[in-house]
Amino acid sequence: MICESTTAVPITVAYQAFLDELTDAGLLTSLGVPGVYGYSGVFEHVLESFDLLTTRRVPHAQAEVMRFPGLLSREHYLKTSQMENFPDLMGSIHSFTGREREHMAMLGKRDRGEDWTQDLTPSALMLTPACCYQMYPTATGTLPAGGRTFDLRSPVFRHEPSIDPCRTQVFRQREFVRLGNPDEALQHRGTWLALGKDILNEVGLNVEIIPANDPFFGRAGRVMASAQKEQELKHEIIIAVSSEEKPTAIASTNYHLDYFGNAFDIKSSDGATAHSACIGFGLERVTLALFKHHGLDPDYWPSEVKNALGL
Amino acid sequence: MICESTTAVPITVAYQAFLDELTDAGLLTSLGVPGVYGYSGVFEHVLESFDLLTTRRVPHAQAEVMRFPGLLSREHYLKTSQMENFPDLMGSIHSFTGREREHMAMLGKRDRGEDWTQDLTPSALMLTPACCYQMYPTATGTLPAGGRTFDLRSPVFRHEPSIDPCRTQVFRQREFVRLGNPDEALQHRGTWLALGKDILNEVGLNVEIIPANDPFFGRAGRVMASAQKEQELKHEIIIAVSSEEKPTAIASTNYHLDYFGNAFDIKSSDGATAHSACIGFGLERVTLALFKHHGLDPDYWPSEVKNALGL
Repeated sequence: MICESTTAVPITVAYQAFLDELTDAGLLTSLGVPGVYGYSGVFEHVLESFDLLTTRRVPHAQAEVMRFPGLLSREHYLKTSQMENFPDLMGSIHSFTGREREHMAMLGKRDRGEDWTQDLTPSALMLTPACCYQMYPTATGTLPAGGRTFDLRSPVFRHEPSIDPCRTQVFRQREFVRLGNPDEALQHRGTWLALGKDILNEVGLNVEIIPANDPFFGRAGRVMASAQKEQELKHEIIIAVSSEEKPTAIASTNYHLDYFGNAFDIKSSDGATAHSACIGFGLERVTLALFKHHGLDPDYWPSEVKNALGL
Repeated sequence: MICESTTAVPITVAYQAFLDELTDAGLLTSLGVPGVYGYSGVFEHVLESFDLLTTRRVPHAQAEVMRFPGLLSREHYLKTSQMENFPDLMGSIHSFTGREREHMAMLGKRDRGEDWTQDLTPSALMLTPACCYQMYPTATGTLPAGGRTFDLRSPVFRHEPSIDPCRTQVFRQREFVRLGNPDEALQHRGTWLALGKDILNEVGLNVEIIPANDPFFGRAGRVMASAQKEQELKHEIIIAVSSEEKPTAIASTNYHLDYFGNAFDIKSSDGATAHSACIGFGLERVTLALFKHHGLDPDYWPSEVKNALGL
């Protein structure tokens, strides 16, 4: 006997529906590759307004502000465990370094439908897998007493084409990072878990905080994911955006223990390897959550939300 | 008899000196690869203020605002003559698409000092060589009467490592682009040559306009460069920044004839292949010009400049 079950709508249907809504409203324009969009002036105005709101709420008068281009030195990339853990997300930048003869050969391959990219050479650069990676190598050495606090922003690349408008191959992260001793790092993480939630509540987003893990690659990755979750090193601030069933992490906090301190030779003022912690806001995801929850036209958003954003 | 001549300072000395000044002032931080920097909050505030000034000066009430991530579909890249003309500037994005066995093999190559990047595959994406390239494919089809005008901004990548702080591998372009018939495109170019100069004068930059050419690759490239210059298709708005002898182009206008209209099947409302023209401001270069000409501390800039920038 076959029991009738409710037919669950595949999640891709929800993704496509939300993407169509956003495209029809002119907020997103497809650039011909999944997960790569142009954004309208209306979308960007909301995004930048949220970014400014976080600036207004930063509790650290001494945060060092840095803005990065989204490129990480290959040498620095190799000092991390990115290739072990997230090889499938990497973006390696390759260019052409030949002369005219090699140029003709490469054009010939292209014209014959052969793989001309084999004639390229890897540059000194990767696309950065997270904003703060660009900062740690600049902090090599001994921290002052009290450590250092950073206010960062950068484009970030993750090779994960998707039709979920919340999962783009490049996105902008706004991060607040603390380098110091373990207590300082943990205090930063705790402060920002609460403050991040408050800021998102201010703009009418009823988020939830959950322990989470990164998408470590392969079978060994599953072990690492469990360990990370058990040790509560990562929390995600989540809300339903593209799909009710599978909420989206629109921000996350991460306690890195001494991982970056080790990788980039950063010492606390007491000589121990520095610890670090950060919060990262996914600016496009927060913006998409605002459009999802308040409607596609910001003119009609609740006034408390508009006021929080300065709209 | 040996005549004494004045010893010209090599330009690299000028570049390094300016880079050192900027780094010592905390405006730029090296990220370990020539031409890749983190920028301080002070630098970014000036950059964004200039960007906002251009917004205030845009004469086109009907400009369509789009903001791009700096990634161009490889398929779209191949529809242009970028590979013929600027192969040395390209940024091709490669990633890892294997499973665990290939992953172990790649890690092994890395550990043995072999070229592990050979195990990567080209993605569907390039880094964009100019901001507007991301827009043209979205405009395929027939334009409305009067054409279309765009207000664009994007990171841009050019593989040209340099110690000149004005020549970065990634930079931000703010562009105003016109798609239409030849008269409309030329009028846009003419309007913006004058307006661009005015805006830069407003912030105390005494720029000059010169006919110019793009850095076409190879021997054939020299012919193309001459043709472009003779036809006055490209103008650069220049001012001394890193070096007195070799001024920097901090903005440029380009009349593309029907190049993009052809490449991306864009037609005017009368059925002819569309023409296009654009102005692009190099936002970091304008900002560097401001620090060069007015000093390293914006608090002490002339008040008319501060007022124009809203500082």
